[in-house]
Amino acid sequence: MANIIHKIGIFCSPNEVYKLLTTDEGLSKWWTTDTSGAGDVGSIIEFRFNGMGPDFEVIDLQPDSLVLWKHSGEIPDAWMGTEVSFELSNVGKQTYLLFKHSNWKEQTEFMGHCSTKWAVFLLSLKAAIETGKGNPHPYDLHIDHD
Amino acid sequence: MANIIHKIGIFCSPNEVYKLLTTDEGLSKWWTTDTSGAGDVGSIIEFRFNGMGPDFEVIDLQPDSLVLWKHSGEIPDAWMGTEVSFELSNVGKQTYLLFKHSNWKEQTEFMGHCSTKWAVFLLSLKAAIETGKGNPHPYDLHIDHD
Repeated sequence: MANIIHKIGIFCSPNEVYKLLTTDEGLSKWWTTDTSGAGDVGSIIEFRFNGMGPDFEVIDLQPDSLVLWKHSGEIPDAWMGTEVSFELSNVGKQTYLLFKHSNWKEQTEFMGHCSTKWAVFLLSLKAAIETGKGNPHPYDLHIDHD
Repeated sequence: MANIIHKIGIFCSPNEVYKLLTTDEGLSKWWTTDTSGAGDVGSIIEFRFNGMGPDFEVIDLQPDSLVLWKHSGEIPDAWMGTEVSFELSNVGKQTYLLFKHSNWKEQTEFMGHCSTKWAVFLLSLKAAIETGKGNPHPYDLHIDHD
């Protein structure tokens, strides 16, 4: 098994981050503007990029501290069986976001692409809170010329 | 063991990337302006951030395709025993850079910080080539408020 891990610090309360991880409106501010289905445990969230994209089932929600999703469906194939978690912790005026995309079957070049792209989107989340303007798809920073 | 992996695509030839990985002048354009010691296999490269930072020994150089470093010294402690590799491949007008920071003893929050920060610096490398202006330390994007 192989994992992607990232950590950023955001100048805000944990609740401000939690809202951006648990509502369609919040998720639309930093990952993709085409997000639907966010809600309680058991919800299936549909993230779309030009009409296609992954679904995630909400597995666990601990207000202001943990969001856990399990990949649902078959797109992309390499994400089947993987989980995404967001762990929040507060230190002073900063909230740390520890991100993991876990349980990849193997460490592939596509995993490398996803790792870099997750960093881009997490910095978009940070900017969405700190500057009021994130860069969700289709306004995201491109990391290659594909 | 745990690994960090990233992949970006740069609109240039492999040689343009290779130069930014194997010379003080090139490395100073994207990681830290205070870089010294880059050279042939066996060289110890000293990367400094406000006077402190890691050393790496150059272990393997395959022109325009591979750069491999092994961590040297004891700073930071968690990097002892780790390796950093840059693999280059050319597809059309694009050069892919596959980056790995391998052989971490365990997956820690500090590893998460480093993973995000490596993404920031690799995007700095891409910008250095494509726009003529990277963001090496001390001009790097901050990912927290520490």
